[in-house]
Amino acid sequence: MSREQRAKVDTILRQPRPEGPQPVEAIRAGFRAMMAQMIVPDDIRTTETALGDRPAVLVEPVDGPRSGTILYFHGGAYVFGSPQTALSLTGNLVARTGFRSLSVDYRLAPEHPFPAAIDDALSAYRALLDSGEDPAAIAFAGDSAGGGLTVTTCLAARDAGLPLPAAIVAFSPSLDATRTGESMDTKEGIDPIFTRDSLAHTGAMYLAGQDPHQYLLSPAILADASGFPPMLLQAGTNEVLLDDSTRMAARARAAGVDVILDITADVPHVFQAFAGVLDEADQALDRAALFLTQQLAPPTAR
Amino acid sequence: MSREQRAKVDTILRQPRPEGPQPVEAIRAGFRAMMAQMIVPDDIRTTETALGDRPAVLVEPVDGPRSGTILYFHGGAYVFGSPQTALSLTGNLVARTGFRSLSVDYRLAPEHPFPAAIDDALSAYRALLDSGEDPAAIAFAGDSAGGGLTVTTCLAARDAGLPLPAAIVAFSPSLDATRTGESMDTKEGIDPIFTRDSLAHTGAMYLAGQDPHQYLLSPAILADASGFPPMLLQAGTNEVLLDDSTRMAARARAAGVDVILDITADVPHVFQAFAGVLDEADQALDRAALFLTQQLAPPTAR
Repeated sequence: MSREQRAKVDTILRQPRPEGPQPVEAIRAGFRAMMAQMIVPDDIRTTETALGDRPAVLVEPVDGPRSGTILYFHGGAYVFGSPQTALSLTGNLVARTGFRSLSVDYRLAPEHPFPAAIDDALSAYRALLDSGEDPAAIAFAGDSAGGGLTVTTCLAARDAGLPLPAAIVAFSPSLDATRTGESMDTKEGIDPIFTRDSLAHTGAMYLAGQDPHQYLLSPAILADASGFPPMLLQAGTNEVLLDDSTRMAARARAAGVDVILDITADVPHVFQAFAGVLDEADQALDRAALFLTQQLAPPTAR
Repeated sequence: MSREQRAKVDTILRQPRPEGPQPVEAIRAGFRAMMAQMIVPDDIRTTETALGDRPAVLVEPVDGPRSGTILYFHGGAYVFGSPQTALSLTGNLVARTGFRSLSVDYRLAPEHPFPAAIDDALSAYRALLDSGEDPAAIAFAGDSAGGGLTVTTCLAARDAGLPLPAAIVAFSPSLDATRTGESMDTKEGIDPIFTRDSLAHTGAMYLAGQDPHQYLLSPAILADASGFPPMLLQAGTNEVLLDDSTRMAARARAAGVDVILDITADVPHVFQAFAGVLDEADQALDRAALFLTQQLAPPTAR
């Protein structure tokens, strides 16, 4: 990563951000403004649609998708964000893989606390299966809170007796509502986006007084990942949520799951959104694209 | 991984193996015979050469290499193996990346115990640098004991004041001569190749009575990895050496190194050698090839 690239990333992150004890609408508007600066590939098209109980955005390559679907869950602490704010991420995955993405506009807290987001994500997955899509051709992907949903929706699908998707890709996933990762303390001040306080502010909206010691809220410390599909977890070392990924990876490994823990040093939370600005973002997305292609389009000889 | 593929791998691994308290020449011959069954890509050519103080094998794409060198260290517990026994691995990396590989025929124990192998690997690297190769265009790669050499040679290069290579790729690396990984016990019986006793037999030949508590023998627990280039560590869950990789990855991460810990479930030590037989082997090699390409041929804009 060049100095110039780091400076660009810093400049963007230093703009007013939707953290701290602000009103929810201000948080949402600030995040929209920040994510609107991210680069979206030219060679994709988007269509408003619906999936299960919720609106969704279909993202496709301009020249038509290949077989396979990335069911995407956007980030935003379960309080802000939308398929639109995640468009640089879904667009880059689609442009790199040729798969279509369906990005779910799940309900947000505080209006709709836990487990509304999971209910909506599961409803979207069920609708995709009901449409005839083979689970072997579906990946769950997401960033931050949406990275958390890749895991918790998989758990909820298993609980519901549904077949599991073929892969999970999570960018800087939030996987522990108890916030007990060591990095919560060791990366405080190093993380340019989150602090323990800022996460507590939005976290309280999603919890709404519920106990965080539940596997659908803190899968990194409580989930049984046995039977899970291959997982790719990517995170930066400049984030308080780093150990959500390291602990989830250890847990998955112990459960006999294929798991790639892909850590980039000196980059922030969901650095992949800086594709086109930061080489490490493009390289991480290329690795995610290869992983998705391997899992959704396996060798015919298999 | 299909049942049929697993059966093929099992069949090969059940053949007489060079472990247990056998004479060194029998161990070496058994390993040669086993590795001779591995599939080597057609589109490579090999040339006997020399590098530093030792013979080496140059592996190139038939249609000519692109710029960049994979300095390869073969496996074999520092007691057996050669560039020839690793040819399926070097050949597959070369065929997939277009880079050339120089595979070092370093001295083996018990005739030449620690640190002979590291001395030879460092000598090879120094010769490569002296030939004018840019360290930014060199990766260290290796399997098993040779995976250990990717790390220890990097440490020795740093100690010698040499520039470090641009990447490290290690397949099931052996990184702890103290054998204190949890997987040494939890994977005993699950690992179809190694046991604590078999590792102790060859390990004693390499140690020759020396203290294993040295960072050049047990880097997973003792090395300072700060300043290391990006690392890719691949291992299977069916191996007693699994936690050599998990602990090295944690150590590198804590030192601010880019590190990918890429674990495949239910496959044995150095499963990548089964390319062409086992889909997971080919997929892991494809991921390694992308990683090498990203590190040795980075974006020109960087």
